[in-house]
Amino acid sequence: MLNEFFPNVPKIQYEGPESDNPFAFKFYDPDKAVAGKPMKDHLRFSLAYWQAILSDGADPFGAGTMQRPWLSITDPMEQAKARMRAMFEAVEKLGMPFFCFHDRDIAPEGDTLRETNRNLDEIVSLIKEYMQHVNVKLLWGTACLFKHPRFAHGAGTSCNPDVFAYAAAEVKKAMEVTHELGGANYVFWGGREGYDTLLHTDMKIELDNMARLLHMAADYAKEIGFKGQLLIEPKPKEPTVHQYDYDVGNILSFLRGYGLDDRFKINVEQNHAILAGHSFQHEIRLARINNMLGSLDANQGDYLLGWDTDQFTTNLYEAIAVMYEVLHAGGLAPGGMNFDAKLRRQSFEPDDIFLSHIAAMDTYARGLEVADRIINDGTLDRFVEERYAGYRSGIGKEIVDGKADFKKLEDYIIDKADIQNRSGRREWLESLINRFI
Amino acid sequence: MLNEFFPNVPKIQYEGPESDNPFAFKFYDPDKAVAGKPMKDHLRFSLAYWQAILSDGADPFGAGTMQRPWLSITDPMEQAKARMRAMFEAVEKLGMPFFCFHDRDIAPEGDTLRETNRNLDEIVSLIKEYMQHVNVKLLWGTACLFKHPRFAHGAGTSCNPDVFAYAAAEVKKAMEVTHELGGANYVFWGGREGYDTLLHTDMKIELDNMARLLHMAADYAKEIGFKGQLLIEPKPKEPTVHQYDYDVGNILSFLRGYGLDDRFKINVEQNHAILAGHSFQHEIRLARINNMLGSLDANQGDYLLGWDTDQFTTNLYEAIAVMYEVLHAGGLAPGGMNFDAKLRRQSFEPDDIFLSHIAAMDTYARGLEVADRIINDGTLDRFVEERYAGYRSGIGKEIVDGKADFKKLEDYIIDKADIQNRSGRREWLESLINRFI
Amino acid sequence: MLNEFFPNVPKIQYEGPESDNPFAFKFYDPDKAVAGKPMKDHLRFSLAYWQAILSDGADPFGAGTMQRPWLSITDPMEQAKARMRAMFEAVEKLGMPFFCFHDRDIAPEGDTLRETNRNLDEIVSLIKEYMQHVNVKLLWGTACLFKHPRFAHGAGTSCNPDVFAYAAAEVKKAMEVTHELGGANYVFWGGREGYDTLLHTDMKIELDNMARLLHMAADYAKEIGFKGQLLIEPKPKEPTVHQYDYDVGNILSFLRGYGLDDRFKINVEQNHAILAGHSFQHEIRLARINNMLGSLDANQGDYLLGWDTDQFTTNLYEAIAVMYEVLHAGGLAPGGMNFDAKLRRQSFEPDDIFLSHIAAMDTYARGLEVADRIINDGTLDRFVEERYAGYRSGIGKEIVDGKADFKKLEDYIIDKADIQNRSGRREWLESLINRFI
Amino acid sequence: MLNEFFPNVPKIQYEGPESDNPFAFKFYDPDKAVAGKPMKDHLRFSLAYWQAILSDGADPFGAGTMQRPWLSITDPMEQAKARMRAMFEAVEKLGMPFFCFHDRDIAPEGDTLRETNRNLDEIVSLIKEYMQHVNVKLLWGTACLFKHPRFAHGAGTSCNPDVFAYAAAEVKKAMEVTHELGGANYVFWGGREGYDTLLHTDMKIELDNMARLLHMAADYAKEIGFKGQLLIEPKPKEPTVHQYDYDVGNILSFLRGYGLDDRFKINVEQNHAILAGHSFQHEIRLARINNMLGSLDANQGDYLLGWDTDQFTTNLYEAIAVMYEVLHAGGLAPGGMNFDAKLRRQSFEPDDIFLSHIAAMDTYARGLEVADRIINDGTLDRFVEERYAGYRSGIGKEIVDGKADFKKLEDYIIDKADIQNRSGRREWLESLINRFI
Repeated sequence: MLNEFFPNVPKIQYEGPESDNPFAFKFYDPDKAVAGKPMKDHLRFSLAYWQAILSDGADPFGAGTMQRPWLSITDPMEQAKARMRAMFEAVEKLGMPFFCFHDRDIAPEGDTLRETNRNLDEIVSLIKEYMQHVNVKLLWGTACLFKHPRFAHGAGTSCNPDVFAYAAAEVKKAMEVTHELGGANYVFWGGREGYDTLLHTDMKIELDNMARLLHMAADYAKEIGFKGQLLIEPKPKEPTVHQYDYDVGNILSFLRGYGLDDRFKINVEQNHAILAGHSFQHEIRLARINNMLGSLDANQGDYLLGWDTDQFTTNLYEAIAVMYEVLHAGGLAPGGMNFDAKLRRQSFEPDDIFLSHIAAMDTYARGLEVADRIINDGTLDRFVEERYAGYRSGIGKEIVDGKADFKKLEDYIIDKADIQNRSGRREWLESLINRFI
Repeated sequence: MLNEFFPNVPKIQYEGPESDNPFAFKFYDPDKAVAGKPMKDHLRFSLAYWQAILSDGADPFGAGTMQRPWLSITDPMEQAKARMRAMFEAVEKLGMPFFCFHDRDIAPEGDTLRETNRNLDEIVSLIKEYMQHVNVKLLWGTACLFKHPRFAHGAGTSCNPDVFAYAAAEVKKAMEVTHELGGANYVFWGGREGYDTLLHTDMKIELDNMARLLHMAADYAKEIGFKGQLLIEPKPKEPTVHQYDYDVGNILSFLRGYGLDDRFKINVEQNHAILAGHSFQHEIRLARINNMLGSLDANQGDYLLGWDTDQFTTNLYEAIAVMYEVLHAGGLAPGGMNFDAKLRRQSFEPDDIFLSHIAAMDTYARGLEVADRIINDGTLDRFVEERYAGYRSGIGKEIVDGKADFKKLEDYIIDKADIQNRSGRREWLESLINRFI
Repeated sequence: MLNEFFPNVPKIQYEGPESDNPFAFKFYDPDKAVAGKPMKDHLRFSLAYWQAILSDGADPFGAGTMQRPWLSITDPMEQAKARMRAMFEAVEKLGMPFFCFHDRDIAPEGDTLRETNRNLDEIVSLIKEYMQHVNVKLLWGTACLFKHPRFAHGAGTSCNPDVFAYAAAEVKKAMEVTHELGGANYVFWGGREGYDTLLHTDMKIELDNMARLLHMAADYAKEIGFKGQLLIEPKPKEPTVHQYDYDVGNILSFLRGYGLDDRFKINVEQNHAILAGHSFQHEIRLARINNMLGSLDANQGDYLLGWDTDQFTTNLYEAIAVMYEVLHAGGLAPGGMNFDAKLRRQSFEPDDIFLSHIAAMDTYARGLEVADRIINDGTLDRFVEERYAGYRSGIGKEIVDGKADFKKLEDYIIDKADIQNRSGRREWLESLINRFI
Repeated sequence: MLNEFFPNVPKIQYEGPESDNPFAFKFYDPDKAVAGKPMKDHLRFSLAYWQAILSDGADPFGAGTMQRPWLSITDPMEQAKARMRAMFEAVEKLGMPFFCFHDRDIAPEGDTLRETNRNLDEIVSLIKEYMQHVNVKLLWGTACLFKHPRFAHGAGTSCNPDVFAYAAAEVKKAMEVTHELGGANYVFWGGREGYDTLLHTDMKIELDNMARLLHMAADYAKEIGFKGQLLIEPKPKEPTVHQYDYDVGNILSFLRGYGLDDRFKINVEQNHAILAGHSFQHEIRLARINNMLGSLDANQGDYLLGWDTDQFTTNLYEAIAVMYEVLHAGGLAPGGMNFDAKLRRQSFEPDDIFLSHIAAMDTYARGLEVADRIINDGTLDRFVEERYAGYRSGIGKEIVDGKADFKKLEDYIIDKADIQNRSGRREWLESLINRFI
């Protein structure tokens, strides 16, 4: 087992709810069967390289705080290699079945894209080597089209065609690398695909160009034989004032408008959902019933703050709601639950990397078990089924079957004086959920 | 001229910016030519019956405050007739070219829909009579599917098929009435088409049913020969916790998903836009470039409050942005600008009805003139055009023309070390706008 | 036992977590000892008359939905009496030890204040009679200074001295009545004490007048021998655009500035806290360490909505945080936990009154038990104590003891190159809390 | 005139509203008399060193974008000197009468505080030299207690006494330097004085310690003979989850509770105000009527975003409201209006530094002129005076004079059936403001 950077951290084992060992799972028992398959196959956890390894604790008002042994290595490529070793050590110790990365996280930029690609290839070789020894797969890869100053005006939506070309070439390489590593998905997050002010923005050109980039990407995936899912990730704002991929609905509208809805699915994130004014469950549900649920970014935001805090999920209600949707969706594969969650700036010790992932993995494991109990108990689902029972017979069935029109419905109701509704019983349903925790 | 309820208020005339007369327009000069047509034809102002006449100043913590002469009439039908006379008096004195109403605003409910329709017919006859004498047209009609307790669980999305049937029959009648009165549009605002909690909600059935209702409506419009636009109005939340018609993007996604996008356009409102986290201009622009801009609800919200305040527009920046979009859209017709704006609870004197509409009409008139100056000056539009000039030649043109793919773009950029961007100049552009005010 | 309005609802008993009976407590076991005293003495639950009995389900977009047997009684005084009987029946069946009311909730207004007071007296007599038979006390009384149109511009802060006089006289009577019924507290919630726009507001006069009203009230309480606590309740906005009693800090500033801080304490509410951008725990903590924690309005808001939803508390995290603060405060008495929570508009059946209170009472009972376990376990409190240990010796102690000034501290630190911080371990602490649920 | 870094930018002159020259003032005419004194003495503009010179365009998702000639200088002290020359060049060309800085902005940190102070002294000498040639004064100085990792848990509120000591010693030096440079004010902004989670926070110790630091600072100011104002700047959140100096009210409560209210005044910022849910005018007014208005941070935020965007003010309504308050306050001195505003990440050319300051200076100048016209016209102020006229005679005067108590007021009102209010006329007042633009 790799043991270079976190020598005091053992392989994390399941010890059960009574354990006092901070470096043990209390609820996540990977091989335990729930709803007919092992926990790990429901949850499909993934470590996010940029959060777990790269995130330094800097914020707009302060410098990085994270104490990381590899920061003393000054040569960029050497540090990049050390960080990759650290990632595999973390992945192995946590028993994490997947990982995710952006191209620019793992290897430094050179003076030209050609040089940058060379750096990337060197690290990718290293990853392939480690993947032969450590039992982990690539959930998804992606291109970072937001950090470098060249993307200040956007990437696919930049007003500068050179930047569009750069973005296209960067995505091309990132897709190749993802394919090479056997990635199950490829993700687009358009952190700069939006605008700062409409005063200088031609929204039509920008959206047309974004669609052009995605069409090229879909074509190229086909060309190279990449069979994984292509995913778009919604976020309403930040870093830009307004992002085109605002939420699931806005993305659906865009994909349908440009004939892309059969090539892309959606990667939903909790913190992005609430910044758009939706619950995470709403966004997952909307994606699910439109057959667009691709994968999840597993984190939680602070409802009282207006920016992306990307916290590790420890709220059981959030976890229960997610797992309830996932169970009803019949599972997430080929997607998974990627820990796009970063340590608080004050949680700067190396141990915190493990404590935080354990906290979130236990939370989702418990959420899965609660959701499974809710579904097995059946009270909740029966309540819903009963509520809409009217649409399974009589006038309700005629509506659903397309046999009713305005005239028929008017005839049916025009002299009816007594329409009866039943209570929605929200308060009781909420207390019902509590009983399963 | 009608002069029963507001005897102290004269016919409002244009007197110019120097006038001190509160009952005069300072900027709205209906027949003045701007950009080649009279102001009034750009603005297409409409009085909203429910706001101007019905709104009583009640809020969740207090009773109505509005002092209205017709409130002393206790017989519901007699009061309804008096209110209609008051509306025509207001419309005539303000020189308002259009009005709008919900079916239930203008006539009281009976014990059955048949009785209710009878009440409605009686008032509609009265309206037709007044429309022969007062020079005003119907911008749009709509059905109120949110006030009555029967709609507690939704109308088209109710879990109760009887409620769906009622909603369908009510819309049928409201469309007939709108058609009879020569309405230019028919609007759907789904105030209860959403949910309170996902715990008891089958989102799939609800959205399917909403689509069914809209298909029936579109079919019925065709059947009766109604040529006006069918419009849907986005609002993200309130009264429900979450409304399906969240914003322009979510509506587009829904319409496209259910094959309704060629039958409906969108009625955008400022206050609903900002509650969804968008600027009004964003929502208008998004509708416009998707060829879905139908009409506008002209009001403004308070950015520091989280509910719909529906204030009269007095902010020039809001008005300039709207009119800039309208001018670039080539006009609003057959839509218009409906004053879905209510008096503050503390503005309870009858005069305030006039003072508030004058304030908003002047604001938009000035907004129109400023937007026209901005467009005539050309600096702003040239800046935008220049910004995207790269897409009109060279590699940019190849991207736009569909002649570039990932490989070609990679070849173009892979050894290029010097991508140059230009400043977005937002601060300067903002000061530029100020120069035209 | 009273059994007139809710004949199907039995006396609610504790049956334990395994019970399937919706009309039973699963966690609230009133006489069970926790931390050395019975649950009921920690929780001091109170029914809010206006929410439980009066709330009709109306919202700004729809009429009342609540099905209540007493609504068929048309005579105002007779209905008021019936409603009071219903309240005592609910209180008795729920085993609620306290209740609260506004003056205008319980008796209708007459043409003058004198007549109104007469109506009030009649109902108060009835209450006194019932209190001899039903084991319930008055947690607090208050005057409704926000519903009537006369308060459109404020009550104590009205620009109209007649309104100030009316408010003063109304508070006088409400205090007398509260005193007569043995109320443990008297509350001020200034729903109209704020402004709609600064354009017409003299903030200085308004705040001075508000202080005058409170001084008069404190003097009058003394004069009539009322020994209960006087409480002010913060809320940032709604119904007004901006309320002076924005949050605990703003109230403290006001009370201290006008010399009122030794006469008033604070009644904190969850939903008002989050509308001001604070967690409920923050507001309770801030009040507690300033010795200003008076009582609690027990509800929960929706973090994604911008208005007061006043939901019944079912979120365990909210309940645990509250009870952790209450246990550390040494209890709430003479304050309590008042259910200022209303049924959702869709929960309109009479049974919902009981189901909702049971849900919330169980949630707080469970919160109390979890908080007690957290405190008994000691890990959390030890972590905090250890974190600040530096202030109990050395330079830290000198700072706390006032023995250090800038020069001394500069001497101490100016050549020190190695300041060491320890991780805040937030993620681990959050998972620790979960272990006690 | 200095002309090293911005060779293409001339001295900015007033050319009037008709000028097309982007490098000229259209409204700011420094010596023009308004309300009896020169514009520049009303406005007291200050350049914020960290924003104008240091701000690099980085955000949480991307690297710096700003093109600045001095960034090619790699030696930290040499770059610091070059930056200072650039600041004086900018100040001189803009005709800015004041500047502001944080200690760590202007000179790099050494290994110990002693070394850091040495670096600081070297730059301070340079500043003194330049101040002899360039006509500019120091509006305020401050210590940066938020960037360095040592402040991760707070500065004055850190759980680590060594950090408290460091903060104290750093403030000591920053006050000395401010004094040496003739600073008119000294500011505290507690960017880390708050908490991330209450789970590990002892709020009482933290607030006590913050008060201790401020007492030491006030004592030290006296000791060294610093006569300038001591100021605290409110901000509700960001970078921390919750900051103690939430808003004007919370600061007032704190200062009054710890006996500091006669030693400190408040530095109010627009963007911080709106993040706390207040209008800027509200916060200024509240400070003003409590005699606590010290100075202003002149910027504007985006009402649709939940983080601090610190934009240059171009909104005339914001500027008019500010200047209306400033005129009624009788001026800002010894405070001023500091441009705590940063260029958008896309406005990265050196020219933008000038274009943005010109935009904001013109906006405030125009705001001053409009506010002056409003006050001279008198309609608005008369409306307010008239609105509260009732408190200048009769029962109103008795209330104000302390001659009325509950009994007297009850006698006065108990039989009065006809309380009359007048309309608040908000809509008309808003249109009135527009007439002066």
